[in-house]
Amino acid sequence: MSAVPRSASAKTRQRETRGSTASFHSGSHLSQLLSFYRSVRETSEYLAESLSDGDATAQSMPDASPAKWHLAHTTWFFETIVLNAFSSAYCVFDEKFNFLFNSYYNSIGARHPRPKRGLLTRPSLDEIYAYRAHVDEGMARLVESGVSPAAVELIELGCHHEQQHQELLLTDILHLFAQNPLRPAYKSAAPLVVEPNGANELAFVAMPGGLIDVGHDGKGFAFDCEGPRHKTFVEPFRLADRLVTNREWIEFIEGGGYQNPLLWLSDGWAKVLAEAWMMPLYWDERDKGNYWTMTLRGAQPVDPAAPVCHISYFEADAYATWVGRRLPTEFEWEYAARDVMRAGNFLDSERLRPRPAPVGGNGVRQIYGDVWEWTRSAFSPYPRFKPAAGAVGEYNGKFMCGQFVLRGGSCVTPASHMRPTYRNFFPPEARWQFSGLRLAEDA
Amino acid sequence: MSAVPRSASAKTRQRETRGSTASFHSGSHLSQLLSFYRSVRETSEYLAESLSDGDATAQSMPDASPAKWHLAHTTWFFETIVLNAFSSAYCVFDEKFNFLFNSYYNSIGARHPRPKRGLLTRPSLDEIYAYRAHVDEGMARLVESGVSPAAVELIELGCHHEQQHQELLLTDILHLFAQNPLRPAYKSAAPLVVEPNGANELAFVAMPGGLIDVGHDGKGFAFDCEGPRHKTFVEPFRLADRLVTNREWIEFIEGGGYQNPLLWLSDGWAKVLAEAWMMPLYWDERDKGNYWTMTLRGAQPVDPAAPVCHISYFEADAYATWVGRRLPTEFEWEYAARDVMRAGNFLDSERLRPRPAPVGGNGVRQIYGDVWEWTRSAFSPYPRFKPAAGAVGEYNGKFMCGQFVLRGGSCVTPASHMRPTYRNFFPPEARWQFSGLRLAEDA
Amino acid sequence: MSAVPRSASAKTRQRETRGSTASFHSGSHLSQLLSFYRSVRETSEYLAESLSDGDATAQSMPDASPAKWHLAHTTWFFETIVLNAFSSAYCVFDEKFNFLFNSYYNSIGARHPRPKRGLLTRPSLDEIYAYRAHVDEGMARLVESGVSPAAVELIELGCHHEQQHQELLLTDILHLFAQNPLRPAYKSAAPLVVEPNGANELAFVAMPGGLIDVGHDGKGFAFDCEGPRHKTFVEPFRLADRLVTNREWIEFIEGGGYQNPLLWLSDGWAKVLAEAWMMPLYWDERDKGNYWTMTLRGAQPVDPAAPVCHISYFEADAYATWVGRRLPTEFEWEYAARDVMRAGNFLDSERLRPRPAPVGGNGVRQIYGDVWEWTRSAFSPYPRFKPAAGAVGEYNGKFMCGQFVLRGGSCVTPASHMRPTYRNFFPPEARWQFSGLRLAEDA
Amino acid sequence: MSAVPRSASAKTRQRETRGSTASFHSGSHLSQLLSFYRSVRETSEYLAESLSDGDATAQSMPDASPAKWHLAHTTWFFETIVLNAFSSAYCVFDEKFNFLFNSYYNSIGARHPRPKRGLLTRPSLDEIYAYRAHVDEGMARLVESGVSPAAVELIELGCHHEQQHQELLLTDILHLFAQNPLRPAYKSAAPLVVEPNGANELAFVAMPGGLIDVGHDGKGFAFDCEGPRHKTFVEPFRLADRLVTNREWIEFIEGGGYQNPLLWLSDGWAKVLAEAWMMPLYWDERDKGNYWTMTLRGAQPVDPAAPVCHISYFEADAYATWVGRRLPTEFEWEYAARDVMRAGNFLDSERLRPRPAPVGGNGVRQIYGDVWEWTRSAFSPYPRFKPAAGAVGEYNGKFMCGQFVLRGGSCVTPASHMRPTYRNFFPPEARWQFSGLRLAEDA
Repeated sequence: MSAVPRSASAKTRQRETRGSTASFHSGSHLSQLLSFYRSVRETSEYLAESLSDGDATAQSMPDASPAKWHLAHTTWFFETIVLNAFSSAYCVFDEKFNFLFNSYYNSIGARHPRPKRGLLTRPSLDEIYAYRAHVDEGMARLVESGVSPAAVELIELGCHHEQQHQELLLTDILHLFAQNPLRPAYKSAAPLVVEPNGANELAFVAMPGGLIDVGHDGKGFAFDCEGPRHKTFVEPFRLADRLVTNREWIEFIEGGGYQNPLLWLSDGWAKVLAEAWMMPLYWDERDKGNYWTMTLRGAQPVDPAAPVCHISYFEADAYATWVGRRLPTEFEWEYAARDVMRAGNFLDSERLRPRPAPVGGNGVRQIYGDVWEWTRSAFSPYPRFKPAAGAVGEYNGKFMCGQFVLRGGSCVTPASHMRPTYRNFFPPEARWQFSGLRLAEDA
Repeated sequence: MSAVPRSASAKTRQRETRGSTASFHSGSHLSQLLSFYRSVRETSEYLAESLSDGDATAQSMPDASPAKWHLAHTTWFFETIVLNAFSSAYCVFDEKFNFLFNSYYNSIGARHPRPKRGLLTRPSLDEIYAYRAHVDEGMARLVESGVSPAAVELIELGCHHEQQHQELLLTDILHLFAQNPLRPAYKSAAPLVVEPNGANELAFVAMPGGLIDVGHDGKGFAFDCEGPRHKTFVEPFRLADRLVTNREWIEFIEGGGYQNPLLWLSDGWAKVLAEAWMMPLYWDERDKGNYWTMTLRGAQPVDPAAPVCHISYFEADAYATWVGRRLPTEFEWEYAARDVMRAGNFLDSERLRPRPAPVGGNGVRQIYGDVWEWTRSAFSPYPRFKPAAGAVGEYNGKFMCGQFVLRGGSCVTPASHMRPTYRNFFPPEARWQFSGLRLAEDA
Repeated sequence: MSAVPRSASAKTRQRETRGSTASFHSGSHLSQLLSFYRSVRETSEYLAESLSDGDATAQSMPDASPAKWHLAHTTWFFETIVLNAFSSAYCVFDEKFNFLFNSYYNSIGARHPRPKRGLLTRPSLDEIYAYRAHVDEGMARLVESGVSPAAVELIELGCHHEQQHQELLLTDILHLFAQNPLRPAYKSAAPLVVEPNGANELAFVAMPGGLIDVGHDGKGFAFDCEGPRHKTFVEPFRLADRLVTNREWIEFIEGGGYQNPLLWLSDGWAKVLAEAWMMPLYWDERDKGNYWTMTLRGAQPVDPAAPVCHISYFEADAYATWVGRRLPTEFEWEYAARDVMRAGNFLDSERLRPRPAPVGGNGVRQIYGDVWEWTRSAFSPYPRFKPAAGAVGEYNGKFMCGQFVLRGGSCVTPASHMRPTYRNFFPPEARWQFSGLRLAEDA
Repeated sequence: MSAVPRSASAKTRQRETRGSTASFHSGSHLSQLLSFYRSVRETSEYLAESLSDGDATAQSMPDASPAKWHLAHTTWFFETIVLNAFSSAYCVFDEKFNFLFNSYYNSIGARHPRPKRGLLTRPSLDEIYAYRAHVDEGMARLVESGVSPAAVELIELGCHHEQQHQELLLTDILHLFAQNPLRPAYKSAAPLVVEPNGANELAFVAMPGGLIDVGHDGKGFAFDCEGPRHKTFVEPFRLADRLVTNREWIEFIEGGGYQNPLLWLSDGWAKVLAEAWMMPLYWDERDKGNYWTMTLRGAQPVDPAAPVCHISYFEADAYATWVGRRLPTEFEWEYAARDVMRAGNFLDSERLRPRPAPVGGNGVRQIYGDVWEWTRSAFSPYPRFKPAAGAVGEYNGKFMCGQFVLRGGSCVTPASHMRPTYRNFFPPEARWQFSGLRLAEDA
């Protein structure tokens, strides 16, 4: 089974994967573009299949959005950024949706306040599906009639944008369901295989460093903040060969990690006190030492061999201090990832939670998938970075403040969405993403 | 058409009305009790008929509750207070519901936090209906098998409790829909007849006062806070013969009422500044002097002749100061209402908004229905008041602080729920109820 | 030693006391008026004598004001309300002071925001004393030159206003010093005599009630809210013959009073949880059962026989519920106080904390002084109450919302400031006043 | 006149300046160390000379501290970190001061809550001076008796620590006085010479970049976060030859800079809206185009030729976007500063506000002094950075999150405190420091 709709053939999925690495800029492969578009759009609806109208409407916190809103906003993106600009034949579905489903594009105008997205019980989920169908039809007509390279670029951006929202839809549903004392499961809650003996001893792999090139080279799709490609100097270092596990994290908990201010960044310790953090988000200790965690498959026992997940930057950094190591920089990570095959536990496996590192093997493992890896790099512009002109210039640049970079993707990231240069970013207190850590040390 | 289910015959409704004035305490009229119970339960479901699962799930502010929660909590009341105590045959529908649907009864135990009621996307609306059916069946079996007077009293209390929640369900849905830029209508939004020339000149009716008896005399049902009946001394006064209208309120707005601190209570003026109050809740001014308001029938022009609605105590008091009058006390109101027929624009008419006072007639009009009338009386215990023993003792007494009494019921109050001694209460800043005012002055 | 300046003779103080009951309205006794004025003004400065410039500048919370501000604001009252209106010869000390030292008179104009009073390090304490001297000189010249009855009334009001601020100056200094880990003493901290065996068994005195007259009769000075005198009906009741003691309060603490939600008003319980209330304000438990409290004489052991102090309305009400009694209404208190001599532990004794009830004696004791007694009466307007015209109309009326009445004065109230009809008022959560309770019960 | 005490000879000051670049580590120059210590200590007291006890006690916001607290905390540092560790003869001045004057050292224990520092009216300013004298005596005895290199290092750190607090004392006093409607002047408010024609046209100086070395080399004193020295790659760029002026900033204001969300970082725009930012902190517009600003010399007209000051990172970044440039990175700045003489408008000049750039001259000017220059670099650890062991390890490392680096010092920074590698850091919304900006652009 796969996160792409069951009707989608293996062939389609293969194209999709290619689609994300090979860009459609060249112009002639419009049918591939449309196929990628359709595959992405179908995946979103597949992900929402098990949600009720109520599930899809509720918003569990200002940082999260309703599933219905994700489905509508990604559609709004195509309508506003692509169809309204490039299709004279297209007729807007509902004038009011521009106000309702704009996320943060000031250049496009006023919008519904973010913390009140959960109050939009209308339009209903069914109306949102009608909206999606209307836009999909418009998009098909537009692409089939031939489009300019500028439009192709924006369509591709819209597809990757929607893939980001696929991941967010799942993280937000998990957060919503975790607030419910009934602990509902998003997907069948059949007991997962716990692998108590998985994940071998941690080893560190030496990396020589030097003056290296990082950032996206412009071939194929990438978000603007991934470039320009540029030089940076990296000192020799050593990188852990796998992610930190739940078993290791429990040692941190039981070793007093959450009680010792000297391990924490100042803002982090303030959070620990203010929010009474004692373990990762979604965990609870049922009896002494018996940890459970909320997952997309309902409440489940914590798997000791699996990577720890749903931790903030503050926690990742405190843990690294506790074990006498540190987090890698984003460039150390990118450098280490340069020769690693882009494969792992992604959304496509539908496991929907991190799995233990494969035992055996050489070199760094779990670089891709499972959990986003916090790096110690603040999310800053690369040298000569220029945001794109127009509304899409608001995509990344205006968030370059107060956020840290995460790398590698997670078990709810679509595989075709991932790249070695991909920069995800969240504020240091964020915990509701599938975020974990990998250790590094100076050589 | 009526707010009771279309299937309910006129005869049933007649019984229901009788039911609320004549108590079932005598014990022998169990079939009447059951009939009242059923009528109330059916009305709740009738009121929720037009709501989607999402509509019924969302919570627009901590003070409001989701419709689904109202439907479940009223059911929980019967399950917990009646069935668990009096029916050995009854089997609890779902153990977890006691946690989810307890409102504020500390004696019954822990409960889901109020501001997070809107995150309970599960159980679904359908499951709540199944819960209701299960409890209804248990209740029918219990009543039919004969019940003690103590149980009868609690069943009657549960029915009146559910009628309170019927009103709250509508006030809360209106608040939710008013947050939605689409301004959805709860009921058909066919343009209402505006009656620009309705409501004659305001007149004041002289009331002699003296040492009078107030409070409920214990015959028939009443909430505990309505008694005991006791003496109070009322000086001669004069009471307005109708409610203050929108036309009069617009004069207050346009006369600078919301800009002049000298008219306001100190806490009221702080609210005006903090919340930028400039007109009643739900109003907006589309062009100069053209006021619209959100209603259960969607956005509508303000009817100048209808009573002003959705104002706080602070606003009511400031208006009275502006016109050189004052609000009545709750005893002045009760005294004036003693001979007035208990009829008016209640929920049963399904108008769902206040209507202008009938033109002509003698004496005070609009005493019942249309809007709750703010009085200047703080909600305090009557002499010798004792809360009931057990959980229901938490019903009213613990709220006797920081609230003002409102009298007379509104256009969303069930007619059979109203009494001359009925004391509604809200904090002085509350605006989302159907609340307005009537003026008084010293004789 | 006395709270009036040491230079003031016994004779002066006698006049002062008379001054407060016999009004100066008759017009001919201007020298008595001036003498009362001077005595009040000197007392304020005497109270501030031991404060440093820093002590007098700091503000410990938005509800409290700096001592310097109290000294200046009371002076501003005379300057603005009296001198500017009645003295053509008077020249304003500093134009900017009107902005700095207006408390809440919207009719007089804009003002410095209340929570920032503690940032006014300039003008210095010395400049405030110069301001006081300037105004005192202006006042003397005005009164000596003969003044109209209207001015006399406002001067008298200004004196009573300043007496209120004398009490507030002390409550606010205590709050400030209690925030300081050094626990500084306002006055010599010589160990107080603890009277562990004081305060005899609690007894209740029967009161017949009936249709009685309450409120001030207009003879002599009173604040506007104390009148008009009017009839009210009081049912027979019984009133405790002394205040609740610390010993009794410790039983409440140790009996779980702060842990049982069923004893508390709903808003009160929310406060208990939010603020982690476990004992009266300023108390701490050094070892098991060994309670200390912060006082104007530094940290001191709690005296078991003395009246409990620094409790909120919520706590008073919960305690009464716990012992199966209730608080009296303000009219019950006034009725019981009608024949009691106006004497007690006031500011004039300079004890500066409550003392145990005198042992022996008949009837109700401690009616005056020691601690303000919470009543269950909301602070509401009396029948036919009309605020005065002009700025002083903002004195009381605009606070008639969300407050409860306290009666009887405290150990920091000037004796000459007290009357049987005096209505003090604070919100139910206030604890920093010298507030305690007396029990009542239905007869 | 100089910010060092008037009694300090020019010779002393010369030594002091040398002191800060040549470290005392070598061990033999203890008299130089003591002389530096004394000079720093005297300067602090000189800066507080004009403050009243009230001025020195008040705290205008949680981010600021009272002057008295600065004087005491810097003393506490020497007592706790140096004397208690290295001097067996030393006797603690007051045990309670450790609780009162610890700033944020968790390793040293509990402490008085930061937002309540302004409530410490005791100890008085005089007692703090006695504390200082006591510690100074202990320090003199310790140093004169010979100290280990470890102690020398901590003493030197303590001196630089106190210099930081000298600057903060002034920024915090300015913030306090700016809250006072009287706008008091810290120093004589004699009208400053406004230089309307100063500051020539902006020019950009080309910088070749390359693989360069940055960070402190360990020779002489530096804070831990300034090292280790390491390689970094800098692309060619161009740097403005002077700071952005008030005249230029007024163009930004009047050109709608504060109204256009597209210029702002997302968090910055949220601040603009939430705080209604319309101009730099402390500015007000008296008539159209007539801007004034609060300074340490009272309210003064804005000098168009002087550098803009008291702006946040958000504002600096928005301005740079508006003119099509960007902020430099901290390494670009350090690279540009490598050959610039360390001279400028520092505290020592006692001008106490920024002055226009000297007209004429070649290359970059105003690198040092006037205003701290925001860089676009997040405050992150350098490669191989390790916090020091012990309490002083909490000095910088734990703040490496959510802050941006500022370089170059300001008009209230002591000259001897500055270095090319000096990294100051503040959160992006901070405005109360003397912070401004210099533009950069890609070559």
